[in-house]
Amino acid sequence: MDVGVQAARKGLDPASDVFNSDCPGRTVLDHVTSRWGVLILASLREGPLRFYELRDRIGGISEKMLSQNLRVLGRDGLVAREVEPTLPPKVSYRLTPLGSGLAGPLQGLLDWVAGHTHDIVAAQRDHDAQG
Amino acid sequence: MDVGVQAARKGLDPASDVFNSDCPGRTVLDHVTSRWGVLILASLREGPLRFYELRDRIGGISEKMLSQNLRVLGRDGLVAREVEPTLPPKVSYRLTPLGSGLAGPLQGLLDWVAGHTHDIVAAQRDHDAQG
Repeated sequence: MDVGVQAARKGLDPASDVFNSDCPGRTVLDHVTSRWGVLILASLREGPLRFYELRDRIGGISEKMLSQNLRVLGRDGLVAREVEPTLPPKVSYRLTPLGSGLAGPLQGLLDWVAGHTHDIVAAQRDHDAQG
Repeated sequence: MDVGVQAARKGLDPASDVFNSDCPGRTVLDHVTSRWGVLILASLREGPLRFYELRDRIGGISEKMLSQNLRVLGRDGLVAREVEPTLPPKVSYRLTPLGSGLAGPLQGLLDWVAGHTHDIVAAQRDHDAQG
């Protein structure tokens, strides 16, 4: 079935169709499911953080990847950068209202992962043992 | 704060900590948030599909990427492969009970994307106009 038709049936803007690689919805999905994007948004859920606090909280992220991802999330309107006019200026990052709305569904996914990592590791072990 | 301590506080197995790059939870997060993984799991939510049905439903996926991702999701215990003993054999893919449990939180995320792609595209446009 045509993906635009599917979206229209559900009363959705066809542009939001994640199954169509030409639609903006696919790009949005890529951003909100990127590994670092998910972890940055989840980290900011409890309040604003400084750059180095984000870096320390998210194991394995480089400063370059953190900067790049904060830029993408900022352009998407999910994260805002705030500069306090001190010397030197203090820069922090917080969720926008749009980003806060996304944090709920993302947390649902993270809770599932936290609760089922054990099951998945067990499945991988069974699979490899059958090899 | 030590990530193992964070997990232990919440009564979770530290192995499930997605913020720690050395924990299996991070790998699980990578699988369940991979672009193709999300779209395959969401596609199977309404019932089993044949390989070519999945390929046609998910815009832009190559047969190679589909095969690879089905293997990863199979090893994770999220998707099962079923072979009907016909000539030629019919192969279909379905969610396991574990995969069905994940499909709920994933759908929450996809619903958010469908409902907010417009807002994100508008934010991107504003951002670029301020350039």
